Amino acid sequence: MAAHIVVLYNAPTDPAAFEAYYMGTHVPIAKKIPGLGKYTITRGAIGAAQGTSPYYMIADLEFESMDAIQKALTSPEGAAAAQDVPNFASGGATILMHEVQEL
Amino acid sequence: MAAHIVVLYNAPTDPAAFEAYYMGTHVPIAKKIPGLGKYTITRGAIGAAQGTSPYYMIADLEFESMDAIQKALTSPEGAAAAQDVPNFASGGATILMHEVQEL
Repeated sequence: MAAHIVVLYNAPTDPAAFEAYYMGTHVPIAKKIPGLGKYTITRGAIGAAQGTSPYYMIADLEFESMDAIQKALTSPEGAAAAQDVPNFASGGATILMHEVQEL
Repeated sequence: MAAHIVVLYNAPTDPAAFEAYYMGTHVPIAKKIPGLGKYTITRGAIGAAQGTSPYYMIADLEFESMDAIQKALTSPEGAAAAQDVPNFASGGATILMHEVQEL
């Protein structure tokens, strides 16, 4: 079963600095994570039902399985990507990991 | 650019009732939404960096574009799916809509 790492970024204190660092530095680091499949981001999600979205950006990293995620996170490349997050996530971030069931 | 509707479900008051209604009633209603592509759910996401996940289930509905989402939500089938959410989301839910950029 496919598994995802989802990173929910709160609004940064300096959005321009966040964008420059994310696209210029963090993405190249993250793309080296072994086993990484589709890697997508979204900005400015439109919230409904409970007002606006609490998140500035949501990143979604797809892997083949939870085993692949565990291997990825314990690799040097995965550790480097995780350790880079505090360098730019000035508003804080929540990281989720989960298996995905297609309906 | 692909676009998604993401529904973040808080923990329901009665998980067994939630599961039975979701899988037995809501999924068949939601699958009738015009333009719906890949439809996935995840349960029990493992939170890191800020403790455990705040969400019981996350549903992700993929569409071709934000235009397709707007058409879907204004269709009778989309309205029926949205109106069904309060019938089982006893812990509340947050609905996000966003375009997705592949990196």
